[in-house]
Amino acid sequence: MHSTDVGVVRTRIDRADPKDVAALSAFGVATVHEAMGRTGLMRPYLRPAHPRARMCGTAVTVLLQPGDNWMLHVAAEQIRDGDVVVAACTTESEDGFFGELLATSFRARGCRGLVIDGGVRDVAALEEMDFPVFSRAVNARGTVKATLGSVNVPVVCGNALVRPGDVVLSDADGVVVVPRERAAGVAAASAVREAAEEGKRARFRAGELGLDLYGMRGPLAELGLRYED
Amino acid sequence: MHSTDVGVVRTRIDRADPKDVAALSAFGVATVHEAMGRTGLMRPYLRPAHPRARMCGTAVTVLLQPGDNWMLHVAAEQIRDGDVVVAACTTESEDGFFGELLATSFRARGCRGLVIDGGVRDVAALEEMDFPVFSRAVNARGTVKATLGSVNVPVVCGNALVRPGDVVLSDADGVVVVPRERAAGVAAASAVREAAEEGKRARFRAGELGLDLYGMRGPLAELGLRYED
Amino acid sequence: MHSTDVGVVRTRIDRADPKDVAALSAFGVATVHEAMGRTGLMRPYLRPAHPRARMCGTAVTVLLQPGDNWMLHVAAEQIRDGDVVVAACTTESEDGFFGELLATSFRARGCRGLVIDGGVRDVAALEEMDFPVFSRAVNARGTVKATLGSVNVPVVCGNALVRPGDVVLSDADGVVVVPRERAAGVAAASAVREAAEEGKRARFRAGELGLDLYGMRGPLAELGLRYED
Amino acid sequence: MHSTDVGVVRTRIDRADPKDVAALSAFGVATVHEAMGRTGLMRPYLRPAHPRARMCGTAVTVLLQPGDNWMLHVAAEQIRDGDVVVAACTTESEDGFFGELLATSFRARGCRGLVIDGGVRDVAALEEMDFPVFSRAVNARGTVKATLGSVNVPVVCGNALVRPGDVVLSDADGVVVVPRERAAGVAAASAVREAAEEGKRARFRAGELGLDLYGMRGPLAELGLRYED
Amino acid sequence: MHSTDVGVVRTRIDRADPKDVAALSAFGVATVHEAMGRTGLMRPYLRPAHPRARMCGTAVTVLLQPGDNWMLHVAAEQIRDGDVVVAACTTESEDGFFGELLATSFRARGCRGLVIDGGVRDVAALEEMDFPVFSRAVNARGTVKATLGSVNVPVVCGNALVRPGDVVLSDADGVVVVPRERAAGVAAASAVREAAEEGKRARFRAGELGLDLYGMRGPLAELGLRYED
Amino acid sequence: MHSTDVGVVRTRIDRADPKDVAALSAFGVATVHEAMGRTGLMRPYLRPAHPRARMCGTAVTVLLQPGDNWMLHVAAEQIRDGDVVVAACTTESEDGFFGELLATSFRARGCRGLVIDGGVRDVAALEEMDFPVFSRAVNARGTVKATLGSVNVPVVCGNALVRPGDVVLSDADGVVVVPRERAAGVAAASAVREAAEEGKRARFRAGELGLDLYGMRGPLAELGLRYED
Repeated sequence: MHSTDVGVVRTRIDRADPKDVAALSAFGVATVHEAMGRTGLMRPYLRPAHPRARMCGTAVTVLLQPGDNWMLHVAAEQIRDGDVVVAACTTESEDGFFGELLATSFRARGCRGLVIDGGVRDVAALEEMDFPVFSRAVNARGTVKATLGSVNVPVVCGNALVRPGDVVLSDADGVVVVPRERAAGVAAASAVREAAEEGKRARFRAGELGLDLYGMRGPLAELGLRYED
Repeated sequence: MHSTDVGVVRTRIDRADPKDVAALSAFGVATVHEAMGRTGLMRPYLRPAHPRARMCGTAVTVLLQPGDNWMLHVAAEQIRDGDVVVAACTTESEDGFFGELLATSFRARGCRGLVIDGGVRDVAALEEMDFPVFSRAVNARGTVKATLGSVNVPVVCGNALVRPGDVVLSDADGVVVVPRERAAGVAAASAVREAAEEGKRARFRAGELGLDLYGMRGPLAELGLRYED
Repeated sequence: MHSTDVGVVRTRIDRADPKDVAALSAFGVATVHEAMGRTGLMRPYLRPAHPRARMCGTAVTVLLQPGDNWMLHVAAEQIRDGDVVVAACTTESEDGFFGELLATSFRARGCRGLVIDGGVRDVAALEEMDFPVFSRAVNARGTVKATLGSVNVPVVCGNALVRPGDVVLSDADGVVVVPRERAAGVAAASAVREAAEEGKRARFRAGELGLDLYGMRGPLAELGLRYED
Repeated sequence: MHSTDVGVVRTRIDRADPKDVAALSAFGVATVHEAMGRTGLMRPYLRPAHPRARMCGTAVTVLLQPGDNWMLHVAAEQIRDGDVVVAACTTESEDGFFGELLATSFRARGCRGLVIDGGVRDVAALEEMDFPVFSRAVNARGTVKATLGSVNVPVVCGNALVRPGDVVLSDADGVVVVPRERAAGVAAASAVREAAEEGKRARFRAGELGLDLYGMRGPLAELGLRYED
Repeated sequence: MHSTDVGVVRTRIDRADPKDVAALSAFGVATVHEAMGRTGLMRPYLRPAHPRARMCGTAVTVLLQPGDNWMLHVAAEQIRDGDVVVAACTTESEDGFFGELLATSFRARGCRGLVIDGGVRDVAALEEMDFPVFSRAVNARGTVKATLGSVNVPVVCGNALVRPGDVVLSDADGVVVVPRERAAGVAAASAVREAAEEGKRARFRAGELGLDLYGMRGPLAELGLRYED
Repeated sequence: MHSTDVGVVRTRIDRADPKDVAALSAFGVATVHEAMGRTGLMRPYLRPAHPRARMCGTAVTVLLQPGDNWMLHVAAEQIRDGDVVVAACTTESEDGFFGELLATSFRARGCRGLVIDGGVRDVAALEEMDFPVFSRAVNARGTVKATLGSVNVPVVCGNALVRPGDVVLSDADGVVVVPRERAAGVAAASAVREAAEEGKRARFRAGELGLDLYGMRGPLAELGLRYED
């Protein structure tokens, strides 16, 4: 199945293992992104619609048409507890595809949040509901329900490939996607990385320089860095 | 009178009925925008300068020249209790046309807030004063007082036409303009819409799907939506 | 020394007088910018990474290469108590050059904050640490350490020239740079300006119009402003 | 009739006098804009889709829905010889609303060109046809025909108000709108302006300075301009 | 193999059948995009670096690091006659990754053109060489060779997924990607579509309206479109 | 003298040696930028207003106020044969500061072109005159003459520092500034670089790979690049 199919809903998807999702949810986006070899990050124009937009779950993917949120209603039925909806659009559109009513519906299905390459509205209500949303815009402009898209096909959202069931993690730094087969490995690598950072943090706090901690003085001198009075 | 007049101040304008303004102030921007047939919304680049920027009032309009805030002082004299100042600019300019002193002056005249297709400054003070502002930028750069614009002519602000006396409503979702003759009708339609939403909200919360609530399954099947395992 | 030198670290710089820095830190960015004749302001795309990003200090400057934060580690050693790091980049880059670990290191050296013409990450941690940062983006994407830049050369950041030791002041309105030789004079002019504003604020609050307070009616009439019913 | 009406086609509109349109077509956009007191200009993001996009005619206006070009087909029927189609959109959309087939249809109706606050495609063919188009984007992405907009209602396009029958003029500098009632006056003022420019051009070519030609030395000195060696 | 692998070069890839590539090369981007159900289009920010940037070939994919063009040299060795290089970047970067020398090398290997989600330079020389390039920017700023990326892994470029061997087609309207397995089918569908357009073009030229040609009057009336004098 | 002085015209400036300017004019912007250690480049948003915008000369600098082109007239008097005018603005402004009349005046003074961090108009006439212009926008919107700026102070234009008399070179790739003291050295380094490129070009044309020509295979293997079937 290509990311290019329109008019299809896949009802059965392979979700990442819940215990790997739980493990990943303990880390920050920057840590997970590093643990994956600096891949999987969505473009930074996707921003939280309100300050409490941290989330982690398995992706139900949606391919929207511009100015048309019909497929979000179709997607609602495919949501299981612990899912995050990732909505891409066939073109750039900043209309308000999503608001309080859909958030109420999604939450009733167990949804943990939304990442959408488009606009959202009712953001004051979304914040009050504590429903996490990452979007490219806030826009009161509503949408129609006239054209088919797809649900649970691979999509490209914020320039990152997301397949149904992949793990999606977001915090104030952005949104990262972990392919479901790599979830356990990335969680383990994230834990190693975080442990290493803890030690460094203490040394930095004590005044040690990165120049010494990372042994950078030699390589810098070799490349010809000059110190002048 | 055209939106194209420069060098004019109209001292007598027809304001929307205060009881219609009061009625409209109870609704969100998204609701009012829908109730108007999805028209009247300013472009989403107009954002609140601080988190408490909700406002509703009748428009005193201003046509500014780039980097020149003279007409805001001229406008101050035309403000009556319950007005909102809507400032357009003859060109794109993100300079800081407005700050704490003008906010103090506007408030003393009964002004409820400002929508400006330009920049503002002193935003920490504006937040402290609880003076609502929607702008396209925050910018410490000040302006001069050298060139005439106009006050209370029709203006285009954020790509929306605003006539003096129209109702302007803003919240976290954006800014919408209601032509003064339509204020009562739009308030009534907003009330109907909000009541309908209340019922839907309860059904969504109970787990009902939009697919069923809106009777979408038939139309989707007719257009050929395929469900696959 | 030109702003064009790459591969150089100047270890001795002339910092503005601490008492002038202290004096300047009492004013807002808009006030200082006005007191300097409306110069020295960085472009408004530099925004606080979190709401508590007010800072004032003497500049340690850094010239970064795109996607490479090596020079920030080199800069750490040059920081003295009361400094602010100003990091320019040889090209436009929104990668996350700076995060919690570097903030911990910088703080341990007495650094008061960072202005960076690039991206930052770990912004939740930065806010918790109360470490002020102005940046052009928030981005979880990390950087490499592979190419030389410079430390304490003149740099252009946000379209403003910053020399090592200049005073850098930021608040919610933006970032302004005061050449170190002008620090005392600008502080004095800012105080004069602020005193004058205090008087105006009271008169505006009492309902006096800017038209009268600034004597604008004559000049406006002379330019032909027409009042119409 | 408000700019906010959706679902309406006005079949009878008042067009500017053809001889005023012919007169205006002799001038550049910058000249006409100046002759109107620097008003009526669309935002500069509207750019020619190919280098030969100069046009002048009377506006048939269209209000489009995002990603939906249905109303352009409805508009075709309303076009008369000498018209220019001005298409606004209810929201920001860069989809390809218009291409070779519609251009063929429009031309067959006597249309002189298109200004569209959206995207267009088949631009190589449009250039070959010599059909002038100003747009905000070039985009191969097509549109649907599902939602009503309007034809021949006042619209806001590129932040400028355009009423059916107004004169629309474009060249490499941009697009300007002349209210139909002002067409004759603006044409006359443009001619005066152009004649004056002709004299100035000769004096500039001969080496005379604007400082002398415009008598600027006195005013500059009065404001305190200092000449230093 | 995931799009997330860094440090890998695949030397054997499945290319689309040359006769399908040849068939597709006869059509425009807009036609092929329609024939694929309106999918596969790159974002419109990718623009031709010079007016003759039409190309069609099989993709050799590259994953670049910001400000680093090392992998383009690695990719050169993998190019076969008839290939197009598609270069994505792990982050947004507008540096000049590509210029005349690499174009000379690529051409010597049989390369038909470049699509790059970054900047290019030497564009006058590229135009003279008639080497087609689509990029997000023109930028004289050069790059380093310091960090590994990958060659011939799936990449996301301009928000579209591209796998090695897929067909890439570009013209003045943009860039579209055809999955290699679908190349024959899409070419056939494009031919059907183009034939249909030919007939429509003639009818439009003869003055027939889309309203009649497409039978739109009924559906429009049903949705309530009102014609008013 | 700081870049921050407003209201000053320096009548005596040190220009780069004409023979160094002549030498530099033979090279491309990319070559000169490399020869300077990849510094001195203006941001790529400065684009040629028409295709023939190549220029090379010594800078007469101007600091403009937003929407105000008065200082360009003041600058005209300071132009000598072989100069290029570099106009910065105290804030971001895309108004049309410059058009045919000023171009006529500048040319009469011996000016070779204009680089302006703002908008220009009359671009069809500028192209016909073959007067080179780099700008951030094309905009028919005119400017006033009301506020003082400066001439021949150091300015920051397109994020690059330019001092009066520095060499400014532009071609289709962008704009680069060479400090006047470095002009001879940079010209020499550019010649060396270009000679080296000539040899490489021939080898690339003959099919040699950059991998071999630059000896990259070893370093790539060391960093762990894997080749897979």
